[in-house]
Amino acid sequence: MSRVKQSFQPIAPPARLLMGPGPINADPRVLRAMSAQLVGQYDPWMTQAMDETQVLYRQVFQTSNEQTMLVDGTSRAGIEAALVSLIEPGDRVLVPIFGRFGHLLREISERAGAEVHVIEVPWGQVFTPAAIEAAITEVRPKLLAVVHGDTSTTVAQPLDELGAICQKHGVLFYTDVTASLAGNTFRTDELGLDAVTAGLQKCLGGPSGSAPVTFSPRAVEVITARKSIEAGIRTDGDAVSAHPIRSNYFDLAMIFDYWGPQRLNHHTEATTMLYGARECARLIVEEGIDETVARHEVNGRAMLSGLRGLGLEIFGDTAHKMNNVTAVVIPDGIDGDAARGAMLNDFGIEIGTSFGPLHGKVWRIGTMGYNARQDAVLTTLAALEAVLRRGGAAVTAGGGVGAAYDVYDDASRLAVAEPDAAAPAAATEPDATATEATR
Amino acid sequence: MSRVKQSFQPIAPPARLLMGPGPINADPRVLRAMSAQLVGQYDPWMTQAMDETQVLYRQVFQTSNEQTMLVDGTSRAGIEAALVSLIEPGDRVLVPIFGRFGHLLREISERAGAEVHVIEVPWGQVFTPAAIEAAITEVRPKLLAVVHGDTSTTVAQPLDELGAICQKHGVLFYTDVTASLAGNTFRTDELGLDAVTAGLQKCLGGPSGSAPVTFSPRAVEVITARKSIEAGIRTDGDAVSAHPIRSNYFDLAMIFDYWGPQRLNHHTEATTMLYGARECARLIVEEGIDETVARHEVNGRAMLSGLRGLGLEIFGDTAHKMNNVTAVVIPDGIDGDAARGAMLNDFGIEIGTSFGPLHGKVWRIGTMGYNARQDAVLTTLAALEAVLRRGGAAVTAGGGVGAAYDVYDDASRLAVAEPDAAAPAAATEPDATATEATR
Repeated sequence: MSRVKQSFQPIAPPARLLMGPGPINADPRVLRAMSAQLVGQYDPWMTQAMDETQVLYRQVFQTSNEQTMLVDGTSRAGIEAALVSLIEPGDRVLVPIFGRFGHLLREISERAGAEVHVIEVPWGQVFTPAAIEAAITEVRPKLLAVVHGDTSTTVAQPLDELGAICQKHGVLFYTDVTASLAGNTFRTDELGLDAVTAGLQKCLGGPSGSAPVTFSPRAVEVITARKSIEAGIRTDGDAVSAHPIRSNYFDLAMIFDYWGPQRLNHHTEATTMLYGARECARLIVEEGIDETVARHEVNGRAMLSGLRGLGLEIFGDTAHKMNNVTAVVIPDGIDGDAARGAMLNDFGIEIGTSFGPLHGKVWRIGTMGYNARQDAVLTTLAALEAVLRRGGAAVTAGGGVGAAYDVYDDASRLAVAEPDAAAPAAATEPDATATEATR
Repeated sequence: MSRVKQSFQPIAPPARLLMGPGPINADPRVLRAMSAQLVGQYDPWMTQAMDETQVLYRQVFQTSNEQTMLVDGTSRAGIEAALVSLIEPGDRVLVPIFGRFGHLLREISERAGAEVHVIEVPWGQVFTPAAIEAAITEVRPKLLAVVHGDTSTTVAQPLDELGAICQKHGVLFYTDVTASLAGNTFRTDELGLDAVTAGLQKCLGGPSGSAPVTFSPRAVEVITARKSIEAGIRTDGDAVSAHPIRSNYFDLAMIFDYWGPQRLNHHTEATTMLYGARECARLIVEEGIDETVARHEVNGRAMLSGLRGLGLEIFGDTAHKMNNVTAVVIPDGIDGDAARGAMLNDFGIEIGTSFGPLHGKVWRIGTMGYNARQDAVLTTLAALEAVLRRGGAAVTAGGGVGAAYDVYDDASRLAVAEPDAAAPAAATEPDATATEATR
C-alpha cells in the first residue's frame, strides 16, 4: 500500500439534462430533502417519518396494502427482495419476457432456486392475456413475474386481465414498475397484484438507491410463513422457519417487522435515501397521481410527435408504448454514438443508447419525473435537430419543436375547455390520444 | 384503496446530537456533496467519480486491492455481498462470535448455504489467536469470518496474528469493519485480509446506505471463478458458471465488472450515496487516516475518563475497547430508558441502549465520525450528569467534564511537545494511554 495521499476536488457535476431512459435529473426538492441532518434510527421522529413514507407510497402505488415500504438498495434490490422472499427453491415461476428486464426477472428467480419457465415475444411487442393464461395452464406456476414497462423496448405489458387470471389459477402475481410507476396509469389493488417493486430514478424524480415495494395480504402470508428471526436478536418463542428465506438482507419477513410496530432490529435504515424517497412521493401526492401520469402523457406525446415531426421513425408498438420513454430509429448515415456524444458534450443533454437486439439501431429518449416538462422536451428536440443536421441527416427544419408545440397547445386548450375532466381522461387513455394527435 | 389525499410536511428533523453507537450525525460536508445534481450512469464524469471513489477507499482501507468499491445498500448489504459471493453451498465457515454481529455473520453465512462452525466467548471479551487457530485446525474452514469491532459489546477483536494463521492454513480471511473503520487502527493489507466490508454511518461520518468493500486478489480469484453474466446482457463467449453466486444483486463478479473498465450493466449506481461515500473518504484522506484514528482515540478516551469521572462503571474489557464507543453500566436506581428519554427530549442528545445479555444493563455512548469532537463529548457529559442527578443517582459534580478536560489538556500538551509524533503514538497505544489517564 502506497502511503501517498491522493485526494480529489469536491463533487461538482457538469450541468446535464438527462433525457435518457433513466436515471434522470432529481427534482431539486428531493435533493434539498436529502440534505437534512440525520436522526437516530429509533427516534420517534424517525419512525414517524417511516410511517409517513408508507402512507405516501400507498397512494403512489394505489393500494391499501399494509406492507408498503422501502428496500434499501436500487430498484434491482427491490426485485430481488420480492423474488427471494416469495420463491422457495423448486417453486415454478413463469416469466413472460418482452425485453431486457424480463431476462432479469428470470435470472433473479433462477438464482433464488426457482424452476423458471419463460415465454417470449420479439422486442417491441407485448403478450395477449390469452397467451399468458395458456402458459399458466401449462406450467402451473406458483408465481407470475412480469415487468410492467420495460425501458429496453419502451413498451408496457397490459396488466388489466392478468390479476383475474392469476386469481382463477391460484397464482401469485408480481410486477416490476421501476420504469412505469407514476408515468403511466397503474393501480396495484385494481390490478389484483400481490407484489410490486419500483425505484426512484425514473418517473419518481429521485436518485437510484431506494426501492419502494408493496405486498398484498396473500403475499404477506406466503412470506411470513417463512419467517426466521435472525440469530443474535432471536428470543425464546421467536420464529425459526424450516424454509427460511435465502437472504438475510432481503428477508421481507424481517423487513416488515422493522417497518412495523415491532421495530425489529434489521438493517440501519438509509435515512438520507428515505428522506429522498419520502419527498418523491410527497411531490406526486401533492400534484395528484392522476395528474402526474397526465403530465407524463402530454410530455411523452409531445416528444413522440416532435421526433416524428423531425422525420424520424419510431420503434416498436406505439399502441403499448410507455408515456415516459420513446425509442427512435437512428437515421441512415448517422453514427449513433457520435450523435449522442455531440448531444452530451455540446448541448449537455443525455439521450440513451440501447441493449441487445436494438443496440446500435435506436436511441431511447425519456420524458420522465422532473424532466417531464415542456422546456426539457423542446430543448431536446431543438438540439437533436441541430446535431442531426450537422451529421448530414435530412431533418425537417423546425419540425420537431413545431409538432411538440402543437401537442402542448392542444393540451392547454383541452385543459381550459374541460378543467376537471382533462387530466383523468388523458391519463386513462394515453395511447389512443397519442395516436390521434400524431396521425 | 381510499382516494383521500394524505400528504405531510417537508422533512425537518429535530436537532439531535447523535452520541449512540451509530448512526451518528453526518458531516455537513457529506450532506452538501449529496445535494449535487445527478449525471448519467455512464457519463464520463460519473465513471471518473467512481474511479476516484475507488482510489479514496483504497487509502481509507489501507490497501492496494484493485477491487475496492461500494455496494449499494447498508453495511449489512456489504456483508452479504462478501459472504454470498465467497461461499458456495456446503463450504465450511468459521465464525468466532463475541457479540451480536458475530451472530449476524453466522446467520448470513448459513443463509448462503455454508456449513457454519462457531466459537464463542462471553460478551465483552475477545479471542486469543491460539483459540482461533485451534478452531481452524479442527474445522478446516474455507473462510474465517470475524467482526472487527462489535458495537454491541464495544470491543474489537485483535486481528494482528490472524492473517498469518489463515495464510498458513489456506483459509480466506474476512472481517467486517463497519463499526471500527477510521476510528481504530486498521490496515487491510498489513493484516493479510482477503475481504473487508464497512458502512458510512459510524466513524466515516455519513448516512447509512452505502457499503465500502475491498477484496484481495485471492478473494477476487475465488469470486470471479463463479462469474456468470446475467441473461439479458450475456453475449456469446460470456461466462456461465456451474456454481453461480446465489444472488444477482450481490454478485460481486458482476459488480467488479460494473466498476471496472468493462462497465458491465448491472444495477444503476446510487449516485447520491456515491457522492456521499466519496466525500466521507475525502474528509478522511484530507485529515489523514492516522490523524482521523488519533482524533477518535482522544475523544473516546475523554469520554471514557469523563464517564469514570462521574463515578460510573465501564462495561467490558477496556484493553480491547474500540476508541469510538463506550458501554457504561446504568447506575442502580436509574431507569435506563427514562434517562435516555430525558437525554433525547430535554437535551436533544441520543445515547444508545443495548442488545441481548446487556439489554437494560448498559448504555452505549459513541464518539465517532463528525461527532468525535470535544464540544460533543463535553456537552454529552454535562447533560448526562444533569439527567443522572435529577434521576437521584450519586454523581461527582463536574467530575465528567473535568476528567474529559484533563484528557484534552494532556493531548494538546503532547501535541505541542511532539508535533509530529503525538498523533501516531496515541493511535497505536490507545488503551494503555486511556488506562493511565484515568487511574
